[in-house]
Amino acid sequence: MHFSAALSLQSGAQIRDYALSFETYGVLNANKSNAVLICHALNASHHVAGVYAGQHRSEGWWDNMIGPGKSLDTEKFFVIGVNNLGSCFGSTGPMHTSPDTGRPYGADFPVVTVEDWVNAQALLLDALGIATLAAVMGGSLGGMQALSWTLQYPQRVRHAVVVASAPNLTAENIAFNEVARRAIVTDPDFHGGHFYDRGVIPKRGLRIARMIGHITYLSDDVMNEKFGRQLRDALQLGEGANYLYSTQEVEFQIESYLRHQGDKFAEYFDANTYLLITRALDYFDPARDHGGDLSLALARATSKFLLVSFTTDWRFAPKRSREIVKALLDNRRDVSYAEIDAPHGHDAFLLDDARYLGLVRSYFDGILKEITA
Amino acid sequence: MHFSAALSLQSGAQIRDYALSFETYGVLNANKSNAVLICHALNASHHVAGVYAGQHRSEGWWDNMIGPGKSLDTEKFFVIGVNNLGSCFGSTGPMHTSPDTGRPYGADFPVVTVEDWVNAQALLLDALGIATLAAVMGGSLGGMQALSWTLQYPQRVRHAVVVASAPNLTAENIAFNEVARRAIVTDPDFHGGHFYDRGVIPKRGLRIARMIGHITYLSDDVMNEKFGRQLRDALQLGEGANYLYSTQEVEFQIESYLRHQGDKFAEYFDANTYLLITRALDYFDPARDHGGDLSLALARATSKFLLVSFTTDWRFAPKRSREIVKALLDNRRDVSYAEIDAPHGHDAFLLDDARYLGLVRSYFDGILKEITA
Repeated sequence: MHFSAALSLQSGAQIRDYALSFETYGVLNANKSNAVLICHALNASHHVAGVYAGQHRSEGWWDNMIGPGKSLDTEKFFVIGVNNLGSCFGSTGPMHTSPDTGRPYGADFPVVTVEDWVNAQALLLDALGIATLAAVMGGSLGGMQALSWTLQYPQRVRHAVVVASAPNLTAENIAFNEVARRAIVTDPDFHGGHFYDRGVIPKRGLRIARMIGHITYLSDDVMNEKFGRQLRDALQLGEGANYLYSTQEVEFQIESYLRHQGDKFAEYFDANTYLLITRALDYFDPARDHGGDLSLALARATSKFLLVSFTTDWRFAPKRSREIVKALLDNRRDVSYAEIDAPHGHDAFLLDDARYLGLVRSYFDGILKEITA
Repeated sequence: MHFSAALSLQSGAQIRDYALSFETYGVLNANKSNAVLICHALNASHHVAGVYAGQHRSEGWWDNMIGPGKSLDTEKFFVIGVNNLGSCFGSTGPMHTSPDTGRPYGADFPVVTVEDWVNAQALLLDALGIATLAAVMGGSLGGMQALSWTLQYPQRVRHAVVVASAPNLTAENIAFNEVARRAIVTDPDFHGGHFYDRGVIPKRGLRIARMIGHITYLSDDVMNEKFGRQLRDALQLGEGANYLYSTQEVEFQIESYLRHQGDKFAEYFDANTYLLITRALDYFDPARDHGGDLSLALARATSKFLLVSFTTDWRFAPKRSREIVKALLDNRRDVSYAEIDAPHGHDAFLLDDARYLGLVRSYFDGILKEITA
């Protein structure tokens, strides 16, 4: 969907002549009451469910959650996935040509915030003729967008499903983001963010950024279970294998896993997008304009809420979700909260867990009854 | 102290014509029974206590713990600090000339292990005429060396004081080390570890490595307390300050802190040393030769033990110290264990904490009674 009118951003900048990539699943009902918007996190897109015909391994990133007969049932709901501004999966981003300069935006792409994304998503819904969402749903950074929807457009959201999220980042969260950004920015191939027309990509930095990210997505427990101290090719080498005694070669399987994740990521993810999206995470803090009082900040929200967290998630720990729950309860809002005992850390929100998927299914069953009542 | 005889390393390699930098504090008593060896961790040296005359801010790295009248009292004990092989504070390391090639070792410096360091330390004690240590003491990686002393030279150690340590690294620990190493190795200025004769230093990589390290040394709590979400120059800007909306400039104080730590470190720490020391951490695993059974591995130890851990240390969590305690108790060894409720994370082992310092003082009072009995 192309938008020619300028969008005013929180920074004071504007962006014009931009496009949003989106996908829809299912059918919008006659009174347009069954629309559900899915918001994505760092490394995801508008392609939330289903597969592309003839394309191997093209499942949407939340395909275990969303589809015909699934927890969010696309035979009953009209589901919309949208790629955010500044991302690198179709919507206008740093690799696209700026209408002002005729060259790729690069590092001059305006800094976008969660609030900006929500505003852009609202314009997309306007264009689709959808006044009110049955629900907005997201995990991690996507959960922040879902929460922000209830503050920016309270009348347009019946329900918000906020999974593995937080009311803002801690200093430690920001610290990990900053190290990843420094790895990218100080890669000589970054060229101040204007690397596109030089024919290079700051892959070294992207690899490091992704490796750091992966450590924080997993729990210590699941890392020990999956990799432990196993040596590379442990199966082939057997238990008695000796160390290589090398500082640069892969010695442990966890190293091999991380390097592989870094290499894959650097092949397709945009460096400027990484900076933009981690910065949007850093900036999100709805309590900031209310003297740090989250209860005051959430007073504007009128929708109903489901919050979900995972016990071993140390990136967005359960206590952060509980802060949101408490602030909503302070405002006497309708909140359901589940803390799922899962070993997988932050990644759990994307994985199959019968209790988690069942819970979301029940919640959407309730929404369906409400909108068809 | 110079050593011309070749030292056989665990890897099968040898190192010859090497030197160990060391300092001593206090006086060795007549029967040579009051010697205490201090082992250092990643970023430390033989300079454990005191100051260098006329040098501002030259306190030893454990000066709050060790000195006249302090917990480890140098008026009563003869304390030895030694810089490990491969380090960059005086002992032979990658920046020194290899006797085989006549050029700096660089990345060809042999991989050294905790066991190798202990063997080298034992040779230093031989040269000093010290047969038996009243105690060996270290924190973090230094604690691993103290533990290893009790296994490699059980008859030469009366007491081991093992602080904030672990019987091996977890997959997550190795993962953080590996990301830091990759940041260094993929810095174009690393030149495969042979950067000395090119007049460059892989500072970009060193900065990233140090930033990652610093995140893991602190607890989430203390980071939030010290920095939280405060903006740069918050005092000057006041509470109403707006974001800069920049992905590359410093926005939050935690970013400023980490960048400063990275910059400082890159000025003085050697890149090859960083690889070697993190690898020594990765490799340490005394249970490995005993089918992973730590109790079997520690059966060789005959000394008495004090183990200390800190509640908010997530790098070397208390449960890792408890694994050592359990394995020692399985062997009916004499073990004291303290889990100190401290907010500072892994860094706590270097900081002032009255209970911690008092505990170590009491323990050394006991040792003194024993050796003077």
